[in-house]
This record gives sequence, C-alpha cells and structure tokens, in this order.
Amino acid sequence: MTQIDRPSAMPSAMHWARWGDPAKAHPVSESMRGLVEAFLGPLEDRPPVPRADVRLPEVGLEDAHLAALRGLVGDEHVHTDHDWRVARTRGKSTPDLLKMRAGDGSDAPDAVVRPASHDDVAAVVRWCADEHVACVPFGGGTSVVGGLAARRDGYAGVVALDLRRMTRLVSVDEVSGMATLGAEQPGLEAEALLAEHGLTIGHFPQSFQYASIGGFAATRSSGQSSAGYGRFDSLVMALRVATPLGDLVLGDSPANAAGPDLRELVLGSEGAFGVITEVTLKVRPVPVVKVYEAWRFPSFTAGADAMRHLAQGRVMPTVLRLSDEAETAVNLASPDAVGSASSGGCLMITGYEGTQEQVDRGRAAATAVLSDLGGESLGEDAGRAWSEGRFEGPYLRDSLLDVGVLVETFETVTFWSNLENLYASVKSAIEANLTEQGTPPLVLCHISHVYETGASLYFTVAAKELEDGLAQWLPAKAAASDAIIATGSSITHHHAVGRDHKPWLAQEIGPVGVEMLRAVKERIDPHGVLNPGILVP
Amino acid sequence: MTQIDRPSAMPSAMHWARWGDPAKAHPVSESMRGLVEAFLGPLEDRPPVPRADVRLPEVGLEDAHLAALRGLVGDEHVHTDHDWRVARTRGKSTPDLLKMRAGDGSDAPDAVVRPASHDDVAAVVRWCADEHVACVPFGGGTSVVGGLAARRDGYAGVVALDLRRMTRLVSVDEVSGMATLGAEQPGLEAEALLAEHGLTIGHFPQSFQYASIGGFAATRSSGQSSAGYGRFDSLVMALRVATPLGDLVLGDSPANAAGPDLRELVLGSEGAFGVITEVTLKVRPVPVVKVYEAWRFPSFTAGADAMRHLAQGRVMPTVLRLSDEAETAVNLASPDAVGSASSGGCLMITGYEGTQEQVDRGRAAATAVLSDLGGESLGEDAGRAWSEGRFEGPYLRDSLLDVGVLVETFETVTFWSNLENLYASVKSAIEANLTEQGTPPLVLCHISHVYETGASLYFTVAAKELEDGLAQWLPAKAAASDAIIATGSSITHHHAVGRDHKPWLAQEIGPVGVEMLRAVKERIDPHGVLNPGILVP
Repeated sequence: MTQIDRPSAMPSAMHWARWGDPAKAHPVSESMRGLVEAFLGPLEDRPPVPRADVRLPEVGLEDAHLAALRGLVGDEHVHTDHDWRVARTRGKSTPDLLKMRAGDGSDAPDAVVRPASHDDVAAVVRWCADEHVACVPFGGGTSVVGGLAARRDGYAGVVALDLRRMTRLVSVDEVSGMATLGAEQPGLEAEALLAEHGLTIGHFPQSFQYASIGGFAATRSSGQSSAGYGRFDSLVMALRVATPLGDLVLGDSPANAAGPDLRELVLGSEGAFGVITEVTLKVRPVPVVKVYEAWRFPSFTAGADAMRHLAQGRVMPTVLRLSDEAETAVNLASPDAVGSASSGGCLMITGYEGTQEQVDRGRAAATAVLSDLGGESLGEDAGRAWSEGRFEGPYLRDSLLDVGVLVETFETVTFWSNLENLYASVKSAIEANLTEQGTPPLVLCHISHVYETGASLYFTVAAKELEDGLAQWLPAKAAASDAIIATGSSITHHHAVGRDHKPWLAQEIGPVGVEMLRAVKERIDPHGVLNPGILVP
Repeated sequence: MTQIDRPSAMPSAMHWARWGDPAKAHPVSESMRGLVEAFLGPLEDRPPVPRADVRLPEVGLEDAHLAALRGLVGDEHVHTDHDWRVARTRGKSTPDLLKMRAGDGSDAPDAVVRPASHDDVAAVVRWCADEHVACVPFGGGTSVVGGLAARRDGYAGVVALDLRRMTRLVSVDEVSGMATLGAEQPGLEAEALLAEHGLTIGHFPQSFQYASIGGFAATRSSGQSSAGYGRFDSLVMALRVATPLGDLVLGDSPANAAGPDLRELVLGSEGAFGVITEVTLKVRPVPVVKVYEAWRFPSFTAGADAMRHLAQGRVMPTVLRLSDEAETAVNLASPDAVGSASSGGCLMITGYEGTQEQVDRGRAAATAVLSDLGGESLGEDAGRAWSEGRFEGPYLRDSLLDVGVLVETFETVTFWSNLENLYASVKSAIEANLTEQGTPPLVLCHISHVYETGASLYFTVAAKELEDGLAQWLPAKAAASDAIIATGSSITHHHAVGRDHKPWLAQEIGPVGVEMLRAVKERIDPHGVLNPGILVP
C-alpha cells in the first residue's frame, strides 16, 4: 500500500503530489479494486517517490534578486527551500501528478514569493518586468491544464507568486447584492466569510475547497450549481488587476455599452495579462432550503433532451447533471449505488436551492417537464448521496494511480444540435487511441452544465497504465482534442487553456483571434514575464 | 409649419435630417405646444434647410479609387451623388440633427459603397486598408453618439459601407434555439423573417424599426424587453467579422473557458476592429400571450426599491421600467395620459410575455412583490398605451426641434447602492448648466433596464433652444457626463461610445484599459482605416 507523505507545517494549498488533504485520502477499497480489475485486468502498486527525492532545477535567481524580493515582501515571505518549491510546482492534472510521482520537479519555481496586498503584488510584478523574471500567480494550485508550468527559457528566473496571504472579505454591498474578496480567498473560506452576512456565491466546482476566487476568475471556472447561480465569470462584476503597465480597475455596472467589455478580457486570461488581486462578485442569500433529487432516463439522448427542454423553457434547477449509460453503470455498481445495478438507463441529478417557495415553484415546474419527457424520479436519498460525495472524485484518482490505473478527466462544450456528434466523436477517438496502445479504456461521460443553447460534456477516462503513463496519455488526449475541434466545439468548458490546450485554442479562435490575444499580451506585458508560455498561442 | 422633405427613391434607412419615416411624423399638437410653452415659454419655428442646400465636402476619392470600388461591388452600388451622400451622413443624435438642419454636411462620406456579401465586405475592407481610405460601416444609421462621423484627416477619402443589401436569414437551428442573420437586417425585418419559424429575438430598442442586427451587436444595444429576453450582447452566440487581417469567426458554444471571450471584444467595438457581417443569436418562441400592466408607486425611490426586489428575487417581468416624478407628471399631462394628472407618484410599466402559464406564473410572482412594496396597479389599458406609443419618441423630438425646443436623451448605469447618488448628481449637473445659460431645462428620467446588481437611468432633457443650439447643448452634456464619471458610473448603458463619449470612456476604463483597446485596434487595423476616430481613445 502506498505511503502518503504528510505535509510540513508550511501553509500548503495541497499535498505536493496528490489532491487535497491527505488525511481524507484512502486506498481503493477491495470492492472498487474488484470492479476496476474486472474492467482493466490485474492491478499493481505504483507508488510515488518520496518528496525529498523530487529533482529540482538549481535556484536560478541570483542572491541580489532574492534580496530585492525580500525587500519587497519581507524576509520571511520569500522561500527557496526544497519543500516550498516542490509544493508550488505545477497543478493537479494527471500529467502533472505523473511527473511529480516520478520525481520530476523540472517546472519548479526558483522562489516562492508571498505578497500580502495589492501593492505588494504590483511591486513584485513591476520588479519581475524590470528584471526579466517570470512570474506565475499561484492560488489554490488546482490547475488541470498545465496553467502553472511557465516557460523558463530566456528568463533570469521564475517566481511563484503565492497569494495565500491575500485572503480577506474587502467589503459587502448588501443593497447591490455584491461582495469584494481578496483574490486568493479559497472558495470554501469565501463561503464561510459570506455566510456570516447570510450570503453565498454559490460556486461549487470540484476544486472548491482549495481553488481561489482569483483563480476561478482567471480560468472561467464553472461550478456544480452553475445552472442556478451562474458560471463564475457571469458573477464577476468588478476586478482589480496588477499589470506591468500599472493597475487596471474594471467594472462599474452590471453591464454597459462602453465599448468592448474588458472584464471579459481579464476573465480567462490565466495570469498572462496581469495578476487579479480583488474580485467583486454577485452574491445571493444563503438558501434556506436545499433539495436534491435523482431521476432515471431511458437513455443519454432522452435525458439530454429533457435538460434542453428545461433550459429552453427557463425552468432551471440549481443543479442539473446527467450521466451517460457507462457512467451510470459504474455509479450503480459502486457500494453506495443509487438504485440497483439492474435498473440501467441514465442517472440525472437535480437540485433546488432557495426559499421554500422558490424551491417548491422550481421543483414543480421541473418535475412536470422531466416526467413528461420520460424521466422517473429515484427520490431525494439518491440525490443526497451524489451531493455528499461530490468533492471526492480527485481522491479516488490518486488511489487509482497508486495501483497503476491511469485516470484523467477533460471536458468540452457545444450547441445542442451538435452534442450527439461531439459525444460520439470524442468517445470513439479516445477509445481508438488507447485501444491501439493495447490499453482499452473505460470512458464515462456526463453533461455537467446546461444552457439554453447548448451543454458541456465531462469525460472520465480510465485505462491500465503503461510503463510511461505520460507517453501513453498525451496522444490519447490529443486525439480527443482533435475530435473536439473537428466537430466545431470548444477545447474547454471550464478547465481553461494553460499550456496543454494552447495548440487547440489557436485552431478554435483562428489566426485573427490569436493576434487579438497577442496584441493585448505584448502591450500589457511587453517583457512577457507574466506566466510565460500559458494561454497565448 | 415646417415642410418635411420626402425621400427620393433610393433605399434609405431614414430621412436625412429627421428620425425614421417622414410619413409618420407630424407637427406638435396644439395641446403639446401649450404644455411645452407652459414650461419653456413661447416657441418659434426653426425649420431645417432643404436637402439640396446641405453643404458637402468635395469628393476626395480619385477616379481610380472609385473605379476600383466599382470593380469590387458593381457599378450600380457605388454612389457619389448629393442625395446619397447626404443620406449617409452622421447618425441621429440631436447634435447630428442640428448640424444637418443647419446644412452642415461636413462629415459626409465621399462615396457610398454597397457590398452584397461577406466576401464583398472583406474585399472592400482590404482595399481600404491598402489605399488608406477610411471605412465607416453604415447599418440603420441610428447612432446617437457620433458613431458615424469618422475622422477624415490623413485619409485618401472616406467611404460609407452601406450594408443594406446584406439582409438575409442565413440559417435557423431550431434544436439549439439559434438563428444566423445577415448583419444588416433591420430589427423589424429580422423579427418578420423569424416569425415565419415561430421565433423571436425579443430585442426592441426605440431604434428597432431601423437599426440593424450588426449595429445592435457593434454597440451593445439593449431593448425595452431586455428584462425578459436579455441585452442584445447576451443573445449573441457567434459572430463573423471582416477585418483587414482577415476573417474572424467566433463562437462555438454558449460559454466556455477557452481564454478571454473574444466575442466580448467585438461586441461594442463599433466598427473599429472589423465589420460584422453575420450574427448568430439566441432566439425564443414567439410569445403566445403579451400582457402589459401599469403600476403607480409613491416615489421614484419606492419604485426603484421594488424593481430591485424583483430582480434580486429573480421574478423578472419581460418589460420593466419606472418613470421619475417629473416624467410621470409629463406623461400624465399628455392627451393620452395614464390615470389622472392629480394622481402623482411614479409610473411603472410591467410586461409579461410567453405561454399563458409562463405569463400567469411570472405575473403572480411579480404582483406579490410589487403590491407588498407599495405599488398600486393601474391596470392593463395603461400598460398597453405605453406599449403602443413606445417607438414614437424620436418623432416628437423632430417636431419639437421644428419649434425651437432642444431635446436630447442620454443614459447611464450603475450598481443599486449608487443609483440615487447618480440620479441626483446628473440631474443637478445638467439643470445647473442649462440654467446658467439662461435656459432652465425640463429634466425627465426613467429606469430603463434592471439587473440583479444595478439599473440604468435614461434622461430626457428639453430646453428652449438658443441661437446656437449645438454650443448650448455640448457643455450641458459634458457636465452630465462629468457627473456620471465622478459617481463611478458608466458613460453609457446602451447608446455606445462613438466620438461623443470617448473622453469619458478613457476615464472610465483607465490608462491600462485604453492600452488594451489600442493594442487590439493597432494590431487588427494597422492602418487605422476602420471607423477612424470612433471608440478608441
């Protein structure tokens, strides 16, 4: 059984080679192991190296550089020791984890710098521009697209700008229904602070316990309750950003016609145009009532059609997701299964939050549509089971990696009329690639987010890991990404671009779109020190 | 009485010096005249010059240029005669009208060029870049912010790119609930085409009968039913744009995390980054039922508070607007008054559209909130009266200009907690300025658009026109604009930037924001031929 390193006393966003809090991790259960072995064959232990064995590049920054950084943020907030550097290396994609588990720390920063304020950030950003030092904003460290692996070549060094000291509730505007938060407030802490005012953001992605408010904005995150509360980008009313050119403060109104909406240029900019230091968000009253309910549909197509009718009839639950037949079968086969394995079909989760009256009204309207379109309610217990387990997925991935099962997720989005085509194309592309490599995969999918005009697909892929898991996964992912672009869909619905999706982003937005991004990048960050190599093709 | 020139046989978006269709115009009624004279003193006729007397600059384009343009779009689609040039000069702001009425045609294009397709537009745009000819996209010609008065200096000439031949329904995607339209389809025609499919855009600004789909996108228009259907920019799913660098095609999904949303950079770009040729819009079923209802609130503050509760409780009617005390009084004093003049308070219009069930559900929920918060229903007749007269305002402006009354409108938007401050500041700024000039104005205001976090204010100002109405109005508008920016609000909610708002846009987005716009402009349009002088500070 794999030994899990416990973190040191440093304020760490996450374990260096695993998801989240190792205290919450546990090895795969015997029943799960049996289930996986039935699909993929016998498993074998593949433990990570100990943290001390992770190979880091020499600290490239000169002593004078480090002294200057200490002058900007204080001696005790600049770190160059092994453990700090390891803990701020890369994000949490499976490729990231595979590299860390193998002891490859080649993307480590030279130093971890921890500013305490907007002015600190602005000073470090200016200093990085002047000294040609690459600057990687590091919030929760939950990127799954290579968003934290900046290019080193040609720079005097790389600093990770660890923003965990910048966590405060700056202000609450109860009349307008808005709150301003320090950008590096983790979602979980932000919700706790706002709950004291009876307010909620309602943004609950799987990374919610760790990822930061600034990170959500920089990557256009979307949460499990986005049907009701909205995507994170749609909640952002104002932004404060430190750039090499100076401060950028945007957002004076819900919406306006004062030219292009520059907020939308900062949202999704992944640290490449500036470091977001404060975010003003739309907030809502903490819901009095939360009800989750599971439904069964005869097929993925039938369930998706019902979702479309909900969205287009504008009777949206707060939570709405639908597993395909394969994901439903795996779910039903697990120990805490919903319903029984023999029941088949596709599982839909609905959730309703608000006042009792809002919940009753919304649920009645949705129930009418879902029943009409072939749905069968499985009741609230089944819904609650989903709700309680919903942040656990990434822990299971670690446990499976520990026994030689390669697991990764990715996602995409398109308009409704293209959804079946997208689903079939991606599924067959990744199945074909991994099967050709001799590791036929298990491919699961669910619709994770629903809009009036379209929906997102979230894929989970599991295969027996070959000796070089990275060399096995990258072409499979590329095949899936090619299929996504070939169908005219987006390379990412809520995971962002990072380094991993950059070639496909270029295809998605075309050469003129690429020039728009480059023009802004080169003007705002003329020395190219902000998260170099990320986002901009 | 002022003689109204009838348009020639040319396909004209609008009368050259007045709003809309002159057949629908009529002089101010005796009762209206009496009402206005009671406020502003005796009136006098101020007729416009005849069209033939409008002074135009010499055609600056060389014969070789004109021949080249004829080669690109066909001989019969390049016009340099007086009437065509006059009809494509400027938009319909009061300053625009005052100039035209005085015979000042100095902003006229050298030629009006009428492409028939995206490829035609792309060819003309490339040609303009090569020949350093300024290119002004001209749709409905309804700009009220100087968006059609490009800078001439330093260019080989100016062409108005008249897009009225590009009017077709390209495709309908019934499953996704979307339609693709030629960008220059006027709103009225677009609705007629979509109605054949049982669909509607639901975008009804005051300019709806004339302004074009591309213009709505380029200026981030917002309509009278935006509470229900959404702002125009929120309806745009995809865009096709011709730029000097080549084609830009954006939009593959309702929303995604593939970097900054570049659609939001084209929306509001006012022809400065490219010419929008096709727009894919979210569309909805034509409503079966439409109900309008008027309400009275004891004060503007009480009515605004009720609107805020509707928006934040997410029980939004399709139409929602509220007049302040002054606008309500003028409305009540008019011949088709709602209620009686003695009733006072503030008038709110609500509208509900959809299926009978949606209308009933929405109306019941809204009625509960409005009644609870001090509203008194004035019934459906009063609501219908508003609905029927809602496109007539600009005709009344012309009739008042004919008798020496200066009338103009402008608008702004802010968050709820700042709304009273914004209202008081702007009202007192413009009142003070015009009073100092010896022409104390009548200032009316209504809340025209409502969001969860804020609302827009739409001001109407009337004053006795001095000899130089333009010199009278511009400092008054500047005082109002200064007040808007001083309160931290936006210089425009739905009228856009053009030339008129540019200095205030620069203050609103700050120097780094300005650099972002400039960077994109200079990269996409390196010779600066696209609508020069517009938008980009």
